[in-house]
Amino acid sequence: MTGPRRRILVIGIGAGDPDHLTLAAVKAMRRADVFFVLGKGAEKESLTGLRRDMLDAHVPGPFRVVEAEDPWRDRTRGDRAGYTHAVHDWRRRRADVCERLITEELVPGQCGAFLVWGDPSLYDSTLAILDDVLARGGVDFDHEVIPGITSVSALAARHRVPLNRVGRPVLVTPGRRLAEAVAGAGARADADTGTGAAVEPDAARLPGSGIGADADTVVMLDSHESFRGLTGRGLWIYWGAYLGTPDEILVSGPLDEVAGRIGRVRAEARARHGWIMDTYLLRPPPEPAAG
Amino acid sequence: MTGPRRRILVIGIGAGDPDHLTLAAVKAMRRADVFFVLGKGAEKESLTGLRRDMLDAHVPGPFRVVEAEDPWRDRTRGDRAGYTHAVHDWRRRRADVCERLITEELVPGQCGAFLVWGDPSLYDSTLAILDDVLARGGVDFDHEVIPGITSVSALAARHRVPLNRVGRPVLVTPGRRLAEAVAGAGARADADTGTGAAVEPDAARLPGSGIGADADTVVMLDSHESFRGLTGRGLWIYWGAYLGTPDEILVSGPLDEVAGRIGRVRAEARARHGWIMDTYLLRPPPEPAAG
Repeated sequence: MTGPRRRILVIGIGAGDPDHLTLAAVKAMRRADVFFVLGKGAEKESLTGLRRDMLDAHVPGPFRVVEAEDPWRDRTRGDRAGYTHAVHDWRRRRADVCERLITEELVPGQCGAFLVWGDPSLYDSTLAILDDVLARGGVDFDHEVIPGITSVSALAARHRVPLNRVGRPVLVTPGRRLAEAVAGAGARADADTGTGAAVEPDAARLPGSGIGADADTVVMLDSHESFRGLTGRGLWIYWGAYLGTPDEILVSGPLDEVAGRIGRVRAEARARHGWIMDTYLLRPPPEPAAG
Repeated sequence: MTGPRRRILVIGIGAGDPDHLTLAAVKAMRRADVFFVLGKGAEKESLTGLRRDMLDAHVPGPFRVVEAEDPWRDRTRGDRAGYTHAVHDWRRRRADVCERLITEELVPGQCGAFLVWGDPSLYDSTLAILDDVLARGGVDFDHEVIPGITSVSALAARHRVPLNRVGRPVLVTPGRRLAEAVAGAGARADADTGTGAAVEPDAARLPGSGIGADADTVVMLDSHESFRGLTGRGLWIYWGAYLGTPDEILVSGPLDEVAGRIGRVRAEARARHGWIMDTYLLRPPPEPAAG
């Protein structure tokens, strides 16, 4: 292929604080001719507003914003296979939308940008969708990724805590997986001797999940408040919502003491905003003997 | 406590690319009266130079840089308890140094800053050391954390890959833990039937480690090239060194095919620079059936 090509920039813009933009992200934004925005509903309006503010603050030249409706995602099937299928199906339809945007809104030599909350590498589908579009072969482009501050880093910074303990791993998990691990532990306890004894010698541990055993655990996308199933294990929680924005809420403490409060605060904030984006760190009690 | 207090800023400055500084990091740097730098040897000189360049580029006003020798860390004990003990002992002696810096180099009302590579929340001891200093009660201060781009995000961005697969967790682990898991799997295989058969139905998996099972795995601080013990499992590796700097090296591909090359490239680069900072993502083969 010779001559100018289309170029796509996938720009991480941080978790919500406009000052979490990197200098590289600002420079990348200034290179773009067109910004693509996919979204829907109250979350879209609120987050799109933040993105518009960033563009107005940092991009002096002319640019276009093209908004497209985010395809509807099937949330009716709750099991893991159903979830994975629904996400793949949703990705396929988003790829249709993105292919159309890149083909119709950019001429070769022009540059389009996706502004991604947090970091494009963590629980965001933009990169996978672009790979899908490239694999189809219908339109050709170069692409580049500009990393962003994750909500994980933003959470730890606001609580002023490290994510890991000395020499130990950190597990970043979707809330769905935590919920499954909690349900599994419950089922194993029931199937046990019926004494209701701890499932494991280490009560903080959720077998098979990596959770609580050794790694500290960061939970993202937990719409089911799975942390409520983890009381009675001596865990600490560091929770945050709308991180980096004026609406930010932080709660931390022993999970057994603060789980109820987080649930109430979360429900109230969600009702007020129409959506919520929160994340949390779970950590076993301080300094168990080195194993 | 009334009147002005000392203030400490712990500023994440990204993995090596000066443009990975956030706008918040630049603003924080401009608030500091003094910058504290701990380090030693070739790594210190090279990294300190990068930090000096950042200060010269972004801090127009007057500032002081105070360098202190990083206390020597005992690296003779290789077992886990010895490692943890050595790190805690090292932290205690670093706390001595930091307490002295904060007490002697700042008067109340002044602001000191630590510039931390990557993000202060991930495998960096500055926050733990400041907690130690506060707990001793010898000097009082406020502190604030400014999150940074991690080498994990930088790695994924340069390879243009997501860290997680759909709906799955990501494990971030020190190389030491990976090495232990590899050794453990070898021991179990030896103790098995002696047939040399795969240890697990899922050959990519390292039992008890969370590695390869379900989570994709990011390995940091791996001075022992533990990935070499993981061939024969069909894993893919995305490896990077000196990420974001002019010396950046990237290698990716099936681990069985590229492990030797990474070893050679790594040894050569390390000899040339006198130090190496690298990280990698390990991922099971594409799309196993949803479990």
